[in-house]
Amino acid sequence: MDKYKIRTLSAQERAEDLVSKMTVEEKVGQLSHSASAVERLGVTKYNWWNESLHGVARAGTATMFPQAIGLAAIFDDQTMKRVAEICSTEARAKYNQNIKNNDNGIYKGLTIWSPNINIFRDPRWGRGQETYGECPFLTSRLGIAFVEGLQGDKEVLKTSACAKHFACHSGPEGLRHEFDAEVGKKDMNETYLPAFEALVKEANVESVMGAYNRVNGEPACASEFLTGKLAQWGFKGHFVSDCWAIRDFHTKHMITSTPEESAALALKLGCDCNCGDTYEYLLSAIKAGLVSEDYATDSAIRLMRTRVKLGMFDESCEYDEIGYDVVSSHEHKQFSRECAEKSMVLLKNNGLLPIDRSKYKSIGVIGPNAASLDALRGNYYGTCDEYKTFLDGIREAFDGRTYYSEGSHLFKETIQPLGEPGDSYAEAIAVAEHSDIVVLCVGLDATIEGEEGDTGNAFAAGDKSDLYLPRSQRTLVSKVLAVNKPTIIVMASGSSLNPLGNTADAIIQAWYPGQLGGKALANILFGEVSPSGKLPVTFYENADLLPDFEDYSMKNRTYRYLENNVLYPFGYGLTYSKVVCKSLDYNSVTNTANVLVENIGNYDTDEVIQLYISDETSKWAVRNHKLCGFKRIHIKKGESVEVKITISKDAFDIVDQEGRRYVDSKKFTLYAGVNQPDTLSEDLTGVQCTKYQIELL
Amino acid sequence: MDKYKIRTLSAQERAEDLVSKMTVEEKVGQLSHSASAVERLGVTKYNWWNESLHGVARAGTATMFPQAIGLAAIFDDQTMKRVAEICSTEARAKYNQNIKNNDNGIYKGLTIWSPNINIFRDPRWGRGQETYGECPFLTSRLGIAFVEGLQGDKEVLKTSACAKHFACHSGPEGLRHEFDAEVGKKDMNETYLPAFEALVKEANVESVMGAYNRVNGEPACASEFLTGKLAQWGFKGHFVSDCWAIRDFHTKHMITSTPEESAALALKLGCDCNCGDTYEYLLSAIKAGLVSEDYATDSAIRLMRTRVKLGMFDESCEYDEIGYDVVSSHEHKQFSRECAEKSMVLLKNNGLLPIDRSKYKSIGVIGPNAASLDALRGNYYGTCDEYKTFLDGIREAFDGRTYYSEGSHLFKETIQPLGEPGDSYAEAIAVAEHSDIVVLCVGLDATIEGEEGDTGNAFAAGDKSDLYLPRSQRTLVSKVLAVNKPTIIVMASGSSLNPLGNTADAIIQAWYPGQLGGKALANILFGEVSPSGKLPVTFYENADLLPDFEDYSMKNRTYRYLENNVLYPFGYGLTYSKVVCKSLDYNSVTNTANVLVENIGNYDTDEVIQLYISDETSKWAVRNHKLCGFKRIHIKKGESVEVKITISKDAFDIVDQEGRRYVDSKKFTLYAGVNQPDTLSEDLTGVQCTKYQIELL
Repeated sequence: MDKYKIRTLSAQERAEDLVSKMTVEEKVGQLSHSASAVERLGVTKYNWWNESLHGVARAGTATMFPQAIGLAAIFDDQTMKRVAEICSTEARAKYNQNIKNNDNGIYKGLTIWSPNINIFRDPRWGRGQETYGECPFLTSRLGIAFVEGLQGDKEVLKTSACAKHFACHSGPEGLRHEFDAEVGKKDMNETYLPAFEALVKEANVESVMGAYNRVNGEPACASEFLTGKLAQWGFKGHFVSDCWAIRDFHTKHMITSTPEESAALALKLGCDCNCGDTYEYLLSAIKAGLVSEDYATDSAIRLMRTRVKLGMFDESCEYDEIGYDVVSSHEHKQFSRECAEKSMVLLKNNGLLPIDRSKYKSIGVIGPNAASLDALRGNYYGTCDEYKTFLDGIREAFDGRTYYSEGSHLFKETIQPLGEPGDSYAEAIAVAEHSDIVVLCVGLDATIEGEEGDTGNAFAAGDKSDLYLPRSQRTLVSKVLAVNKPTIIVMASGSSLNPLGNTADAIIQAWYPGQLGGKALANILFGEVSPSGKLPVTFYENADLLPDFEDYSMKNRTYRYLENNVLYPFGYGLTYSKVVCKSLDYNSVTNTANVLVENIGNYDTDEVIQLYISDETSKWAVRNHKLCGFKRIHIKKGESVEVKITISKDAFDIVDQEGRRYVDSKKFTLYAGVNQPDTLSEDLTGVQCTKYQIELL
Repeated sequence: MDKYKIRTLSAQERAEDLVSKMTVEEKVGQLSHSASAVERLGVTKYNWWNESLHGVARAGTATMFPQAIGLAAIFDDQTMKRVAEICSTEARAKYNQNIKNNDNGIYKGLTIWSPNINIFRDPRWGRGQETYGECPFLTSRLGIAFVEGLQGDKEVLKTSACAKHFACHSGPEGLRHEFDAEVGKKDMNETYLPAFEALVKEANVESVMGAYNRVNGEPACASEFLTGKLAQWGFKGHFVSDCWAIRDFHTKHMITSTPEESAALALKLGCDCNCGDTYEYLLSAIKAGLVSEDYATDSAIRLMRTRVKLGMFDESCEYDEIGYDVVSSHEHKQFSRECAEKSMVLLKNNGLLPIDRSKYKSIGVIGPNAASLDALRGNYYGTCDEYKTFLDGIREAFDGRTYYSEGSHLFKETIQPLGEPGDSYAEAIAVAEHSDIVVLCVGLDATIEGEEGDTGNAFAAGDKSDLYLPRSQRTLVSKVLAVNKPTIIVMASGSSLNPLGNTADAIIQAWYPGQLGGKALANILFGEVSPSGKLPVTFYENADLLPDFEDYSMKNRTYRYLENNVLYPFGYGLTYSKVVCKSLDYNSVTNTANVLVENIGNYDTDEVIQLYISDETSKWAVRNHKLCGFKRIHIKKGESVEVKITISKDAFDIVDQEGRRYVDSKKFTLYAGVNQPDTLSEDLTGVQCTKYQIELL
């Protein structure tokens, strides 16, 4: 038997054996996302491109979870891991079925190009919705959980995950193919790289995707600096380019002159798999002496090693038994709905929520996102066999009369092609006037907030130009609020928005909550469940006060460094109850905080206990404080519990201007709370964090 | 008080008085669809354009009924009238609210440009879905009912209806702006005009819309022939052009050279209201002497007469009390669902239907129309506060596992933009393989079947080029049928399609069934209700055997004249029971047929008792036979009932080649049945019609 078929050998040995039997043409044929078959070796055609950002995407029916930013708002690595387990279970089930039906096309494989662990450093970025927010620590913990869920804990990889986009990739979308992210060493090692390092070191992520942009002059898919980092971290997977990123080398970045040069450069610098078609020029590049065949051999080995790990050269594996019935199963969908319930962030509540059904005979549901499937989806999504829009969820949960008006287009002046500007405001007002209570469903969707190339021209290539609702909706909000009915604003978006809803009674940030988002919303509105999501990003007041979008410095960005301009803080989110952290203890031996938590409100609820640390003396400390631990708990009304949270290893570290990481101080303040230890958070929640002074020896 | 404000005076007197106070500019300002205000006279700005083909359309939330062709399939004037009553009730409610909120924009008025009573003479016509099918008699009766429902029976018009498109308008869509429909006198008076005559004479339809095309050389919006007919019929309403049809005179038909000439020609020939902007040139046309001001005066009077009749110059009217709560009320939506149940046509059933739930643990719902909102809508639709897709309806009605696959794009090769051709077939097969029973939801929607200008380029400007499903779906059907599970094909379309479903166990023609179409389908599939719709159009085998699309001769067209090529006949549709017409009697004094009807099957069901007549001797008789009466009944299993049906006045008439209508024969055969008296119908239903020989004295 050929060595590569022997399961007891290491993946490395098997891959080396397999590749050793390939011609140079065959090796090169493995290095593009749509890889060729080598039939005599039993290597089938394989398409490396699959997506599962929040459910298996673009591959037919699958369970759809809240968009990644919403999953982050759950602040819970266990939930995140379970989401990813369901993703990989469904991906395996679909793969098992597809290979039976001879379909090995795009989005049908086991190599999943998720998660997106870029830092959402600027609220205007359209793809920020794909990330876990603005905090490197939160991103790391959630990213690790997601990778673990995708990859499984067996010897055979359940699916392979991909940490993307490596690195310093966070807009502007319109410039991404030619942009050079200039990042200083402190920001690089403190903000932009830690999540990648964590996923490589702690989660053994099987692949890393290079970004479109350059990083300090080098294209991310051919960067000595970045591949050096991977080597330093002990990365043992493969490197894939973002799609058609290598073509950008000679067409946009202008750092090479020909496709051959681009292909050669990327291969030499460790890009194993080219998503795109530039590696079609590799053979001629090799023949022209631009790069040696050895690089192709090494890359082919790394790629085949992943396929070996996925069990593709074994007769069978433990995941073959996953049956098609798991795809979009009732259990998975209900878990998606639970995630949506946990992800929604109650930003404001004057007591109207939860809605007392007995008080209201009619409810008005108004707005372009009320009956929108796109408002449930976000980008990178699959197809569902069941959706509940916000309107569906409310109508089905409410016995009285439900009135509905679309109210306005998402961003255009008219709903009807021949309509006059504002053609639906009169109806929206009518609905508000006839309703005892109003739910105003506004926000964005992935047609205007998303990825360059996916979007229309209405907004800046998928990015936002300001932090307000589109004008059509701003007018809608002001007109409906002017009717002066009890009104709840529900915002679907993947990023910070200011709804200008001062006179609204309640505001809920729903993100893009997945297929049953409307049911989840209704459960929150009517008090079946207490909201418990927390903002994984700062909500800013005003885009004019933000640093320049192209400036990658962290100065005045994110909760760790911001100086002003906060509408709602990172970590913030109300519940229907009132949970307080009464005391905090720190055990320096186990590096664990003990928090005594009490629910002094009137509802059973989930809460997220958050630990922040501030370094009292180092000049390299973050400006404010940083998250160093968190735990989601369920706590009944009246209940007290002790919550143990291990503090992050690097909680006490600073990163200096040379990018060095070390402990530079002896005095720290540790905070425990249900929010950040800042005045605004404490004002908004009415709850203060509890503190503990740590002095290192 | 000004005369025009005095309610006791006639509408004509009031309109004359009002217009007499207008300047020529003000009069001309009334003659476009977006009519100007004359504030000193209390004439508000008014937009004449509103739509309600199957529910108030394009004006926000409203109840959505099945598309017109589906309403026709109900074969019931009483149901049709109730549908239109609901439309006018909702239109009034919305109007009442909109004027309070100062919105008198497009689609907000009381002048409704429905119904479309063109004869669906060729199955390729994309707008055939808007009509009541291919039979002039059926179209007349249903059109009258619809107009009565819209206009109401009070002195004040509830809303005004519009008979369109006058005349001989039925494709091709791509040519409509320059097309000359050449129609002989017999076809004109026997096929193309009778429904218009009936709506004018019997329903007092308040307006008539001229078509885009020419009719025997004259543009329909400026045709001596057509306006002569209206005068002959005693038409007392106003005439409106199709939208921008008058511009076509000089830009497409090339029968005038300038906008002024076009405007002058249309006005002189009785076109009172220009939908479009060509009448902006009327003032200069009048000044240039192309047309006298008197024509503008007369047209303005006719238009203001309609507004007077609508109560717009009264302090109040009985319809002011219609409250907003009627809009999309529970009752209206449930009636829409009942209409959908009655409209769906069971084309084939080998006994699989109704589905015995106890036999099946899983159901597969497959196809691009399964989860499609567009498949519920057809064209000219409103916004709903509740939809049930086919998938929703089935999933909610079935306790076992529901599997879903979109299966294919409606017409493109791939579902995913980057996907390989046929990227969802493997999933469709997987779903079929894992399901005990399969519902395959295919067909069209208004993105590919509809109106010129509304549609993409995938198909011929909204028309069909053949009578098959788009290629993507043909492949899907064959692949799913090959799995060989018990399979029901559900077709959503507004026209004749051949699903090539010989091996399917059952086929349902669902039309575009409106907002709760999926619930209606489920009720039929699972036997909550027996299907009872009848085809208002012939379903043909093959487009190649049809006459040329541009040929308006009726030779070999529709059930009255066809010679071959029938897949499913006009009037055909199965139920879950077996209803027979046991005897037929004719009373020549009352011109009434008495039919003894018995339900010898095992289900309570609705049935449509159909009367056809054939003239045994006249050489001018239609080739086959013609519908001359119909009645929808509900009949319990085992029950016998006597059904009295008055026969159409002109049942015994022929139309000769000069277009003269008279009785030319003494011998007739009258047929009563649940289908046409042709062999194919009798083969398909297993039921023969009963006959009665009539000899006139």
